[in-house]
Amino acid sequence: MTKKINHIGMAVKSLDASVPFYRDVMGMVFEGAEEVAEQKVKVAFLAVGESRIELLEPTAPDSPVARFLEKNGEGIHHVAYEVEDVETTLAQFKAKGIRLIDEVPRSGAHGTRIAFLHPKATGGVLTELCQTPKR
Amino acid sequence: MTKKINHIGMAVKSLDASVPFYRDVMGMVFEGAEEVAEQKVKVAFLAVGESRIELLEPTAPDSPVARFLEKNGEGIHHVAYEVEDVETTLAQFKAKGIRLIDEVPRSGAHGTRIAFLHPKATGGVLTELCQTPKR
Repeated sequence: MTKKINHIGMAVKSLDASVPFYRDVMGMVFEGAEEVAEQKVKVAFLAVGESRIELLEPTAPDSPVARFLEKNGEGIHHVAYEVEDVETTLAQFKAKGIRLIDEVPRSGAHGTRIAFLHPKATGGVLTELCQTPKR
Repeated sequence: MTKKINHIGMAVKSLDASVPFYRDVMGMVFEGAEEVAEQKVKVAFLAVGESRIELLEPTAPDSPVARFLEKNGEGIHHVAYEVEDVETTLAQFKAKGIRLIDEVPRSGAHGTRIAFLHPKATGGVLTELCQTPKR
């Protein structure tokens, strides 16, 4: 059901400070950056194998990522797994009694449909389901 | 240089309690478990795409993972990236001034050669380089 790790989301204070390590030292392919206004973050994408590292820099003090940084400092914010169909998967998880943050999918970067599971359901890891648009 | 995400290591209190979510809900393939005596952990492996989730349960109170759980609770412990040759990569990283935990590779699960970078070098994420044995 879960096809692959779509990305690992990492909270950082500054994309300018963090991109060089993943691009120039780890040798990942920088695929650009975009603002996700709904989440009040700027996101940089770095490809590694079939997955990506997504570096998340808050754009406002009330961004969820700003609150994460205040509480935890820089580090892994969430893990996203690719699924065929988020809506169907959410329905299956709900039927199994899995605690969800999003009962219905919402919009992510790159035209994805996403939904978060509650960390209580997943052993403390904020977990995202991610459906990439058909080309 | 970095070929793929080899695995995400997650610290858990109990494999028995955590394996079912990843296997039965997320639908990952359970590939077995083994003890890594050197690290005082039992590790369960679950395949997802070209990567794995590694669930880490401490086997002793002085295990590094036991200390992690005490401080942070359950959650992501480290991210491991596959490289062609850990020794060469370590030498390159050292030349670039990247802070390392392991100056020389050590043995990981499944006959891998591994080395950890310091979280200070990577924006707060404990990062492992991992070389899988040639078949």
